[in-house]
Amino acid sequence: MEKPLVGIVMGSKSDLPLLEGAFKVLDEFNVPYTARVMSAHRTPGKAMEFAANAQANGLKVIICAAGMAAHLAGVMAAHTVLPVLGIPVASEPFNGLDALLATVQMPPGIPVGTVTTGKAGAKNAALLAVSILALSDAALQQKLQDFRKAQTAQVEAADAELQASLAK
Amino acid sequence: MEKPLVGIVMGSKSDLPLLEGAFKVLDEFNVPYTARVMSAHRTPGKAMEFAANAQANGLKVIICAAGMAAHLAGVMAAHTVLPVLGIPVASEPFNGLDALLATVQMPPGIPVGTVTTGKAGAKNAALLAVSILALSDAALQQKLQDFRKAQTAQVEAADAELQASLAK
Amino acid sequence: MEKPLVGIVMGSKSDLPLLEGAFKVLDEFNVPYTARVMSAHRTPGKAMEFAANAQANGLKVIICAAGMAAHLAGVMAAHTVLPVLGIPVASEPFNGLDALLATVQMPPGIPVGTVTTGKAGAKNAALLAVSILALSDAALQQKLQDFRKAQTAQVEAADAELQASLAK
Amino acid sequence: MEKPLVGIVMGSKSDLPLLEGAFKVLDEFNVPYTARVMSAHRTPGKAMEFAANAQANGLKVIICAAGMAAHLAGVMAAHTVLPVLGIPVASEPFNGLDALLATVQMPPGIPVGTVTTGKAGAKNAALLAVSILALSDAALQQKLQDFRKAQTAQVEAADAELQASLAK
Amino acid sequence: MEKPLVGIVMGSKSDLPLLEGAFKVLDEFNVPYTARVMSAHRTPGKAMEFAANAQANGLKVIICAAGMAAHLAGVMAAHTVLPVLGIPVASEPFNGLDALLATVQMPPGIPVGTVTTGKAGAKNAALLAVSILALSDAALQQKLQDFRKAQTAQVEAADAELQASLAK
Amino acid sequence: MEKPLVGIVMGSKSDLPLLEGAFKVLDEFNVPYTARVMSAHRTPGKAMEFAANAQANGLKVIICAAGMAAHLAGVMAAHTVLPVLGIPVASEPFNGLDALLATVQMPPGIPVGTVTTGKAGAKNAALLAVSILALSDAALQQKLQDFRKAQTAQVEAADAELQASLAK
Amino acid sequence: MEKPLVGIVMGSKSDLPLLEGAFKVLDEFNVPYTARVMSAHRTPGKAMEFAANAQANGLKVIICAAGMAAHLAGVMAAHTVLPVLGIPVASEPFNGLDALLATVQMPPGIPVGTVTTGKAGAKNAALLAVSILALSDAALQQKLQDFRKAQTAQVEAADAELQASLAK
Amino acid sequence: MEKPLVGIVMGSKSDLPLLEGAFKVLDEFNVPYTARVMSAHRTPGKAMEFAANAQANGLKVIICAAGMAAHLAGVMAAHTVLPVLGIPVASEPFNGLDALLATVQMPPGIPVGTVTTGKAGAKNAALLAVSILALSDAALQQKLQDFRKAQTAQVEAADAELQASLAK
Repeated sequence: MEKPLVGIVMGSKSDLPLLEGAFKVLDEFNVPYTARVMSAHRTPGKAMEFAANAQANGLKVIICAAGMAAHLAGVMAAHTVLPVLGIPVASEPFNGLDALLATVQMPPGIPVGTVTTGKAGAKNAALLAVSILALSDAALQQKLQDFRKAQTAQVEAADAELQASLAK
Repeated sequence: MEKPLVGIVMGSKSDLPLLEGAFKVLDEFNVPYTARVMSAHRTPGKAMEFAANAQANGLKVIICAAGMAAHLAGVMAAHTVLPVLGIPVASEPFNGLDALLATVQMPPGIPVGTVTTGKAGAKNAALLAVSILALSDAALQQKLQDFRKAQTAQVEAADAELQASLAK
Repeated sequence: MEKPLVGIVMGSKSDLPLLEGAFKVLDEFNVPYTARVMSAHRTPGKAMEFAANAQANGLKVIICAAGMAAHLAGVMAAHTVLPVLGIPVASEPFNGLDALLATVQMPPGIPVGTVTTGKAGAKNAALLAVSILALSDAALQQKLQDFRKAQTAQVEAADAELQASLAK
Repeated sequence: MEKPLVGIVMGSKSDLPLLEGAFKVLDEFNVPYTARVMSAHRTPGKAMEFAANAQANGLKVIICAAGMAAHLAGVMAAHTVLPVLGIPVASEPFNGLDALLATVQMPPGIPVGTVTTGKAGAKNAALLAVSILALSDAALQQKLQDFRKAQTAQVEAADAELQASLAK
Repeated sequence: MEKPLVGIVMGSKSDLPLLEGAFKVLDEFNVPYTARVMSAHRTPGKAMEFAANAQANGLKVIICAAGMAAHLAGVMAAHTVLPVLGIPVASEPFNGLDALLATVQMPPGIPVGTVTTGKAGAKNAALLAVSILALSDAALQQKLQDFRKAQTAQVEAADAELQASLAK
Repeated sequence: MEKPLVGIVMGSKSDLPLLEGAFKVLDEFNVPYTARVMSAHRTPGKAMEFAANAQANGLKVIICAAGMAAHLAGVMAAHTVLPVLGIPVASEPFNGLDALLATVQMPPGIPVGTVTTGKAGAKNAALLAVSILALSDAALQQKLQDFRKAQTAQVEAADAELQASLAK
Repeated sequence: MEKPLVGIVMGSKSDLPLLEGAFKVLDEFNVPYTARVMSAHRTPGKAMEFAANAQANGLKVIICAAGMAAHLAGVMAAHTVLPVLGIPVASEPFNGLDALLATVQMPPGIPVGTVTTGKAGAKNAALLAVSILALSDAALQQKLQDFRKAQTAQVEAADAELQASLAK
Repeated sequence: MEKPLVGIVMGSKSDLPLLEGAFKVLDEFNVPYTARVMSAHRTPGKAMEFAANAQANGLKVIICAAGMAAHLAGVMAAHTVLPVLGIPVASEPFNGLDALLATVQMPPGIPVGTVTTGKAGAKNAALLAVSILALSDAALQQKLQDFRKAQTAQVEAADAELQASLAK
């Protein structure tokens, strides 16, 4: 197994299904990754240690998924200079507004690149990580362009199908 | 100088004026306190160290004031079992909604007692800290009751003044 | 049965299931408590009386759970100098934003320590009450530290389990 | 001086300027009123006493203006069966959303008739009180209809003025 | 059948179940009422006519329930000087925030007394209407006080039941 | 003076400065218009009459600007089948969220085409009206395309200016 | 089959059921339309091409339905001077607030006429398109007036039915 | 002058002052950049062209700042596989909530890494771009670590200064 380039960290085991889209994207692009359950509040020591050692361990990008007062990405970003991406996880009762604001509104000096909330965000965080890794990997960049073309073709197929069904 | 019982931590020096109401309350009640500038993101090591040593250093309550993705109280609470109180600081453009949600929506297991936003919150956090300390300090509890009476009298005086002005 | 140290007040009998997490925490820590149904608007006399006599009755902390225009914690805080903690209860249609703001935005002079909305908040209010009581009870403080360690271990176990499942 | 029919209660002396529109309306309609400073949290005893005695004192309608966790109208309504009207007062940082929700979202059984926030609300609360009093006072009802006609004429005059200025 | 004193207007037949709590309250208090389906936008002529003739038809209070851009209460209030009460109806996707703001934020000069959203609001609007009618009907006022006592007793019974269940 | 094709209606004379951008656009395109002050609540009769006669008077599009519980566009739309465009006007304390929701959330059957809030919306409403009129006026459509080109050129000029300043 | 006058564009095939109300309205009014699946982000080239050629292809109005960061209507509007109408599609977790703001808050110079969110909006967008087309089609205008009368009659029938059921 | 690695695009010349923090960071790190004024709606052709050619022109990261219905970052991301970062610009009346949601809520497949609103975001976007470039530039990574240390030292100095002032 290759050394992971992307670290995916979730604040709770219950976030795992939400992250499957991220795993799927990274698998498709053959980008090795590790996935961890670490909490900014319940295992802060582990979280810091993970972030502090991330670069030495060969990671290039860290993706964090957390809900409520979602501090996980911020804690990661405070302990590494690697790019950190945050996925706000929606939960009751504030439907992710809490997680979005707690993830994106970082103070000047410690950035988090925040993506769409929820499952769409899991996919998008993985794609953004791929686009970062692709900057120094021409093959990966080609794959990313192919992915985009396939994605475009899917929407075009849906459009063609709709045209056909309306023409009946 | 007495050993501080309350630790007041602000995420940025610019929060200092907002906290004067807290200092004033603690001074009035003769509760010794320390005030620190520590950032969850820019000095995370110091912040953790402060929280981790707070109990050994004799602190009883920690008050945190922070804005935006206000993680400071959460970081403190993650590293101590002392009661942690959070003051959400309003800032542009989301007017404290970000700070309120990032402070109050802590995950189960690590509580933060959040008070009113801004200056009112600084006063209230200090009063809540006093009410906690007063549980084992009868003199302080008496002072707190006197404070309440004086506060009541002030509103009653304003009411009397209004009656007088309307009677003219 | 020991004399209760914590008073848990709910605005409506329907809030009872939400508060089970609070009962469970207090039971685990062997902290005696009383639970009451009292409404700021429908039984205001009882509510005031409860708050006014709380200290004489030996209570140390009052926890209030209420929804909508959640005035219960504020009414309690107006009639006692004991620390009052508020749990905002989410309900249709504003999903707890009304309860959160009505609980936390207390005017200067009468604080309420507000915790997370809903079930997470019930657990957190109880834990915050324990952390307050633990200030003068070394055994309780030790239990609280043990609780934290167990909580940390649970997240670490979830992390280990995830690592194991990914390694397959 | 006539016995007041309307009781205007404000949570803080600082709300006085906001209420001038209410005074002006009641003065225009020759409706006697009293104005009081009473706080749901800082003078809860006075507030309850005022509400509990309001009917015996000849009041017909109570108008309350309060900001933040605006409990004043709710406290009044809990202690009287007179109609209670609430004016949400906007304040930093949540611009009256807190006051609106804390005033309007009363639980079933204890209603508050909430009007527009701020100065517009002060005028509207007074007009709504007049419309209630006018139900048993034909002269007042006539005045209210005249008020509406004058108000209509003012907007029509503004319209005519605009037409004239555009015709130039 | 007595001449109705309260006019209940709903913007859509689908609001009928929500208003049952209002019917029930008025039935309990023996207050005669009429209920109508009229839309500010789809039957504006009928709506205006209803409001304009309400006073001549003997109505004393108008209650309006509407959702989305809830203009119904405002249209009514524009065409009568009777007190108009508004019930914001929550609907997808904005969960009643649209209806609340469209009902309560009336411009100065034309008030609407807005109550709680939804079913709680239907009950509260009816109770507020009763409190208005009771100003000139001593028997009704007595009934309202009895209602409050019964309501208080219900919450006290729930409290007693909880005490009993906890004592086991 | 030509017969107006566009009717611009504002709820209050104070909205006049906000609408200057709309006047300017219509003047530039030589589209004749009329501007009126009419209130959904204070001059509802005039407003209805205006809408009901708009088509007979030769109007093609109605533009409405209103704030708070902004019912003006809805009232217009209820009384005409002409296209009605709404400009939400921001005002204290809810900064136009009330006006936006009250304008856009029309029930099915009576549409309002809502544009950007405030001054940007005044300009956009006028441009949208022009685009509607241009459907049957080739010269106007040409002017609209020229306007777009000039607008594009302005942004390109700003870009060129920035390039020049950075090159220094 | 007639040449389409209205182009209905959806960002995703999953928006199709939501748009059925628009198809139904246009079918009822015998207005020919085309429906397309095109994404501002996944098929931007197709989207631009569609907008740029819309006028030449005989389209008069473009209706766009999109959710989340709903850029589709804006992209269309940027590439055509035809009137563009936007339907904000609600989706988890922000319930359409994202789509509403992303659709309506267009910068000055490029308007989008935004209608109600969701299914009500689909119907309203189609009706607004019909009202625009009716400006130069007297038969269509008559049909629109007939539609309004039928709609009024439906609400009046619901009102009559309610009266009948209450009279029992 | 070196070939730019970062492209900074703003939707309007008026966003220039807000972006100075981004320029300053990139200047400090000696990262060459270009800055452009391009509008998703007013110069969509230029914007697409810029994005489509960005990679061929040697850019590695694109930073976009836009307000209101902030589509600029989304348009860029739709036309390039380079990492795109978005800075939501706050403007009246919705204070950046519109820009935040329109930037971050991208559909699955086309990610935008969104940073803090406003000036803090300009600085953070530049720092995130630096962290991305530093992945393949050890010297830049060292500078980034030095930057962090200096930033930490600044907060520690503020803390020391506060200690000193309190000790007096």
